Amino acid sequence: MKIVVDAMGGDFAPGNIVAGVVDAVKEYHVCVTLVGLSERIEEELKKYQFPKDLIEIVHAAEVVAMNDAATVVMRQKRQSSINVGMGLLKKEGYGAFVSAGNTGACVAASTFILGLIPGVDRPGIGCIFPSLKNFTLMIDVGANTAAKPEHLLQYAKMAKVYAQEVMGRPSPTIGLLNIGEEECKGTGLEKEAYKILEEKEPLFIGNVEANEVFTGKTDCIVCDGYVGNITLKVAEGLMESAGKLLKREIKKNLIAILGAKMLQSSLNEARKSVDYSEYGGAPLLGVDGLVLISHGRSSPKAIKNAVRCAKEEIEHNILKKIKEEMVK
Amino acid sequence: MKIVVDAMGGDFAPGNIVAGVVDAVKEYHVCVTLVGLSERIEEELKKYQFPKDLIEIVHAAEVVAMNDAATVVMRQKRQSSINVGMGLLKKEGYGAFVSAGNTGACVAASTFILGLIPGVDRPGIGCIFPSLKNFTLMIDVGANTAAKPEHLLQYAKMAKVYAQEVMGRPSPTIGLLNIGEEECKGTGLEKEAYKILEEKEPLFIGNVEANEVFTGKTDCIVCDGYVGNITLKVAEGLMESAGKLLKREIKKNLIAILGAKMLQSSLNEARKSVDYSEYGGAPLLGVDGLVLISHGRSSPKAIKNAVRCAKEEIEHNILKKIKEEMVK
Repeated sequence: MKIVVDAMGGDFAPGNIVAGVVDAVKEYHVCVTLVGLSERIEEELKKYQFPKDLIEIVHAAEVVAMNDAATVVMRQKRQSSINVGMGLLKKEGYGAFVSAGNTGACVAASTFILGLIPGVDRPGIGCIFPSLKNFTLMIDVGANTAAKPEHLLQYAKMAKVYAQEVMGRPSPTIGLLNIGEEECKGTGLEKEAYKILEEKEPLFIGNVEANEVFTGKTDCIVCDGYVGNITLKVAEGLMESAGKLLKREIKKNLIAILGAKMLQSSLNEARKSVDYSEYGGAPLLGVDGLVLISHGRSSPKAIKNAVRCAKEEIEHNILKKIKEEMVK
Repeated sequence: MKIVVDAMGGDFAPGNIVAGVVDAVKEYHVCVTLVGLSERIEEELKKYQFPKDLIEIVHAAEVVAMNDAATVVMRQKRQSSINVGMGLLKKEGYGAFVSAGNTGACVAASTFILGLIPGVDRPGIGCIFPSLKNFTLMIDVGANTAAKPEHLLQYAKMAKVYAQEVMGRPSPTIGLLNIGEEECKGTGLEKEAYKILEEKEPLFIGNVEANEVFTGKTDCIVCDGYVGNITLKVAEGLMESAGKLLKREIKKNLIAILGAKMLQSSLNEARKSVDYSEYGGAPLLGVDGLVLISHGRSSPKAIKNAVRCAKEEIEHNILKKIKEEMVK
């Protein structure tokens, strides 16, 4: 089963993408199809040694910019790597699609080209957050910014299957992101979603406040895509700013500089456990195919890990299992 | 002008509250009125030396629990420290009210007892976030979870005055929290608010993504109370979990333990600049009186700083200036 990778997606494409794919085929012995401007891809591939039979190239004449509107991509860039790559998933032998490119375009292309799973009204992006206990899967972090209560129930069911099959949690707990623990908290969406989740999802354990995302209180958290996206970006921005602030303070003081060097290995370990690139890709759940969205600033390591995630999703037959869950 | 402090509000009341007030009257030479169970307050005050003429006690027979519903407090706990203390603000000689208690009850009591400023439809809680440049004022972080576009314009105008008068920014920039920079991003609320802000507020500079809250891109950020509350709690929760994670890693390694000790002063400085207790209180803007809401877990230092904020708001005549701005 080949894994399709968008060679042109992300801030450092195709360089980082090709580098990550080369590492992935060597480490995981998977077959990867790189989609994009074939000359640019070949140029990058020349830099590396790798088993030639594990990487194929499919040409796509157009490139989606990170700020292209999804509607424009769908209408005017049909030969883009996102559209061409997604089209391959409909053929025999292709198992998953990975892109670090324009998120909106990926969501639109996968919805229109692959279609939605029966029982799903809107796809959702699942983000895997590090926590004090383990990883927490939050869905949706940006595909659907006008979620309805029943969408959150659909996200809960899909997240449950993902946590069981890919994250190894036999009986994952599910929480609803909210601004308080009580059932009456939140906007109309959360109040209504609480009722539906309580009635229809046995693994639902109630509201989860935003400060508990990182304590690992629940295995899965469902929320509206707008709020989920804010959560993701607050977390990213805060870690970056806090790191810069600390560096600034350390530089003022010689003893602190030495102390920081002695701390390096612990800092690296701590950083590793919160590093998005260690996880690699955010699963887009609800579309009729396996799609993983990587960070726009993906490093080669992030791409390598996204390919690993795709491989695991294929091996666990996650698409079939989600489909079964959605018609239960 | 006396500053009224809710002696019974917060997780560590009245102990931390009284301790913070004693420090405040000694350091800032302000007069404070402590409201609550007078016997409990007197008991705490006995522990300290302070100028007796600077602290008075007003008895309030009822105590609001942190999880009491605001409607219940308004109907059934009229003799609570929040209601009694807020009532004092309507009398001559009382300038501001500080509480670390139940936020919902504070918002409800101030709205009903003090009333709203003409031109304001909903009060908003302003939170002062540390950033790489300076402090950023975000409003609303939880008073109004069903904001309309015009509420966000009202928040922008009030935040502007606050930033000018209290934070010393003569021409503060104002951003709209959103999931992308483009005008077309976000839900219906943000799209409509963008238009109104662009038309009516000259200091509005466009959308601000959540990762930019901590870089200090703008002086003020307006948002719906639901999303603002999530932002606040993600930031709090992440800092706490990241700290715990780092400690866990450091403990595994003797050299790192020593390194951490050498880093202590830089860590303390960095922590100080992101510590809520250094700022002290979140202004509740839009009600016809000066109200500051402190963190439920307030330390004596946080209470002392909240009293300092209240003093500054009184000295800058912030209420009068906000009123003038709202009828422009």
